[in-house]
Amino acid sequence: MRSLLLFFILGAITPIALAQDDSTFIRNAYDEALSRGHSYENLRSLCKDIGARITGSAEAAMAVEWSEAKMRSYGFDKVYKQEITVPHWERGTKEAGWVRRENGDLIKVHLLALGGSIGTVGLMEGELITFPSLKALQEASLKEVSGKIVFINQPMDEKEIITFRAYGGCYPIRGNGAVEGARLGAKAVIIRSLGLPIDPHPHTGSMHYNDSIEKIPAAAVSTQDAELIQQMVDAKESLEFVLEMDCQSYPDVQSFNVIAELTGTENPDEIITFGGHLDSWDTGEGAHDDGAGVIHCLEALRILKELGYKPKHTLRLVFFMNEENGNFGGKSYAKIVMDKGEKQIAAVESDRGGFAPRGFTCDGSIEYLKMLASFETHFTNYDLHIFDQGYGGVDISPLKDYYEGIPLFGFVPDSQRYFDFHHAPSDVFENVNKRELELGCAAMASFLYLLDKNI
Amino acid sequence: MRSLLLFFILGAITPIALAQDDSTFIRNAYDEALSRGHSYENLRSLCKDIGARITGSAEAAMAVEWSEAKMRSYGFDKVYKQEITVPHWERGTKEAGWVRRENGDLIKVHLLALGGSIGTVGLMEGELITFPSLKALQEASLKEVSGKIVFINQPMDEKEIITFRAYGGCYPIRGNGAVEGARLGAKAVIIRSLGLPIDPHPHTGSMHYNDSIEKIPAAAVSTQDAELIQQMVDAKESLEFVLEMDCQSYPDVQSFNVIAELTGTENPDEIITFGGHLDSWDTGEGAHDDGAGVIHCLEALRILKELGYKPKHTLRLVFFMNEENGNFGGKSYAKIVMDKGEKQIAAVESDRGGFAPRGFTCDGSIEYLKMLASFETHFTNYDLHIFDQGYGGVDISPLKDYYEGIPLFGFVPDSQRYFDFHHAPSDVFENVNKRELELGCAAMASFLYLLDKNI
Repeated sequence: MRSLLLFFILGAITPIALAQDDSTFIRNAYDEALSRGHSYENLRSLCKDIGARITGSAEAAMAVEWSEAKMRSYGFDKVYKQEITVPHWERGTKEAGWVRRENGDLIKVHLLALGGSIGTVGLMEGELITFPSLKALQEASLKEVSGKIVFINQPMDEKEIITFRAYGGCYPIRGNGAVEGARLGAKAVIIRSLGLPIDPHPHTGSMHYNDSIEKIPAAAVSTQDAELIQQMVDAKESLEFVLEMDCQSYPDVQSFNVIAELTGTENPDEIITFGGHLDSWDTGEGAHDDGAGVIHCLEALRILKELGYKPKHTLRLVFFMNEENGNFGGKSYAKIVMDKGEKQIAAVESDRGGFAPRGFTCDGSIEYLKMLASFETHFTNYDLHIFDQGYGGVDISPLKDYYEGIPLFGFVPDSQRYFDFHHAPSDVFENVNKRELELGCAAMASFLYLLDKNI
Repeated sequence: MRSLLLFFILGAITPIALAQDDSTFIRNAYDEALSRGHSYENLRSLCKDIGARITGSAEAAMAVEWSEAKMRSYGFDKVYKQEITVPHWERGTKEAGWVRRENGDLIKVHLLALGGSIGTVGLMEGELITFPSLKALQEASLKEVSGKIVFINQPMDEKEIITFRAYGGCYPIRGNGAVEGARLGAKAVIIRSLGLPIDPHPHTGSMHYNDSIEKIPAAAVSTQDAELIQQMVDAKESLEFVLEMDCQSYPDVQSFNVIAELTGTENPDEIITFGGHLDSWDTGEGAHDDGAGVIHCLEALRILKELGYKPKHTLRLVFFMNEENGNFGGKSYAKIVMDKGEKQIAAVESDRGGFAPRGFTCDGSIEYLKMLASFETHFTNYDLHIFDQGYGGVDISPLKDYYEGIPLFGFVPDSQRYFDFHHAPSDVFENVNKRELELGCAAMASFLYLLDKNI
C-alpha cells in the first residue's frame, strides 16, 4: 500500500521535477553565456587575429589551426580535422571601376568582383546597358547587348519582412548574371549589390559559369553607386563603364573541416551534427557570416560541458570549410560520414548572423515539427517564439542526400540587419553586439540539450 | 426568402471580407513605411538639425518649432501646442573627474553629472569609499561614510533577458544614491552608469533630492571606469576621487507639448492619445530615447492619413515635453484634458527605442487584454509576438490618475541593445537602424488602426 502510494506520488511528481530540471538547466545555460561567456572574446579573436578567411587563403589555414587549438583548450572528448578538397579563388590586387559620363567625367564606384569571376586582363571598357532585373536582361536581344557591359540594377525588395526572402528574390542576378549576359554577347556584368541599405559597401558572393558559354567578368557595385547610375540612366545619359580586376581561380587545395565531440553516454553511435562555416568571403572579417555561427556552436558545446551535461547521443560540433564558394565542406562531410557508416540522427546549423535569437526552424517530418513545437514553452522566458517549419542550412543540407528523413534544424536570429553586412567590408566584429551574440549561444546550448534529450 | 438568403450570405461573408480588409490595410501600412517612408529622414533631421534637447534648452525650443512645422507639413486635421511649465537644469561647462591612486597617479574617468545634481563649487575631493549596492550603502555607518565620496558600483544584471528589468533593479542607485549618501554625511555620490556593455560612455539620467537632507553632487562614471576602480579597490588600494561640475538648476520655464490630430468620423469626442517624448537628455542626440518614439508616432499618423484612413475616434498624436526630468509634459497633459472634460478612451506610447518590433503590452482590464490578444493574428506575418499584459509608458501614465480604467498600451521593440545607448553620448542617429525604425512605424500605424476599429 505504501509502495503503491509512493508510486502515485512519484508518478505525479516526476514530470514536474523533470520540467524543473529542464528549466533550471536552460537558466544555467543562459547565465553561463551572459555572465561568464567566452563567445564575444572568441569572435573578436577569430575576426582580428585571423580575419577574412576565404578557402585557399593563408587566413583560412590559420583559421583551421585557431579552431583546433580553441577546441582542444576546452577539453572536449574528441577534437580532429577532416581533410577535404576545396576551390581556390583569389581577388588579386587590382580591382577598380568607373562610370564615364557623356561629358567625360569619371565617377569612381565601390566595386567588388563576385567570387569565382575571371579577371579583365587589363583595363576593360564598354558602353553600359542597364536592366532593371535579370528577367529584363534575359528578354533582351543579342543586338542590344552584344559588346556592351551589362548593369543589372535589381534591388532587394525592402517590403519583405523576412529579409532572407528578399535575398532569395535577388540571388539569381548574382549567381546567373554573368551567364545570362554572356549568352547575349556582353563583355562583363555588373550587378547592384545584394544589400538592403543604400550605402557605399559593395557586397560580393558566389557566381557561376556555364561551360558552354563564354566566361565574362562579374562584379557588384554598392547600392549607393547603383542608385547614382540609375539617376543618370533615367536622365537618358549615355554611359560607359571601365573596370579592371585581376581575380582568378587556382587549382583546388586541401583544407579541413574542424570537429569536436562530446561522446554520447547512452547512444554514442548516434550523432547529432551541429555547426556553422569557418570560411568567409575575403572582405570584412566574416563576423556575422559566419563567425557568429561557429562561435554560437563552439560556445554551446563549451556551456554544455561546463554545466556537466552528459549527452545521450554524441554531440558533434563541425566548423565547415568552404560554404561560401562551393559548399565542399558540407558535401564532403556528408559523404565521408555516410561512407564510414555513421548513424546521423539530426543536424543543426547557425548561419544567419549574430543577432537577437528568435527561434529555430525544422526541415523534417511532422514528428520532428511536433517535437520542435514542444520546445517553445522552454523558451518563453527567453523571448524566442519561432518554432516552425523552415530551412536548416547550407552546410548540413547535403546530409539529406545520404540520410533519408534526417531532420535539419536552423537557428533563427532576427533578420532585419543581416543584409546590412552580408558579404560586405562592413561585416566586422564591431558590428556584432555582445549581448545578442551571447543570447544566441545560450539559445543554441539550450536547443541542443532539448534535442539530445527528446530525439 | 431571397433577402433572408442574402442576409445569411452576407452574414457569413462580412467577417472574412473585413479580415481581408484589415490584412490589406496592414500590408499597405508596412509597404508605405518600408518603401516610401519618411521616418529615417525625419529622425536624421531631429537628431542633426536639432540635436540633444533637454527641457529649457535652446534645442528644446527649436524641437517644438521643428515638430509643429513637421506636423503642419502633413496636413493633419489639427496641429497645436499645449503650454506647460517645466524644470530647467543645465550641465554647465565644467565636468571632469579623476581617481587619485595611492602613488599619486591620476586616472581621468568618463563622467556625466546626473540630471538635477548640484555642482561642486570648484574642485571637490575626498577619500573614495566603494559599495557594491545601494543596500550596502544604506547599511553603512555615519562614521564610515562621513566626509567621503561614495562610489556605488552596482552593475545591471546581465542575466535578465528583458533588459528593462535589469534597469529597474539599478534605477534606485541613480534616483536615491545622493540622498542615501548624504544621509551618512558623504560629500558626493558617484555611481556606475546604468548601461549593460563595458564601454567608455557614461550614462546620465534623473536623480532627486530630499528637502530634509543636504544636497550633494551626483555623477555617473562609465562602466569601463567602474570596472577599473573596482580592480584597484579589490587590490586594497586607498583611492581618492576628485571632481568638478558646475551644473545647476534654474527657475522653471514655459514649454510645450506639441499635438496633431486626425478627427474621428464617428466619435470625434472620444480620443485615443498616442505619442512619445520630444525632450531628451543633453548628451548624444536622443536618437533612441525618444527620437525613435516620436518618429514612430508621427510616421504612424502620416501613414494612416496617406492611406486615406478615416478614424472612428479622434487620433491624437502628442510629442510630450519633459519626460526625462519631471514628466511635467505627461502630468500637465492629463490634467489639462481632464479639466477640459475630454473623453480619453485609450493611450499608446513608444519610449523603448527604435529597434525591431516585438509587440505591444497593455496596462488595463481583462477586456482590453483580450482585445490586445486578438490583434496578434494580424501581426504573425510581421514577426510580432508579444501581445500581453505590461507597462504603457511614463508620458501616458498620469492619465490613469484622472481616467479610471483607461487602457494604456506600450510599444515593445527588442530590448537587447537599448541600454548600450540609453542616456549616453552614443545615443545618436547612426546607432538607429533604418529598417528597424521603419518596421516600428508600420507596427504603430497598424496597431492604431486596429485599436481605433476595435475599441
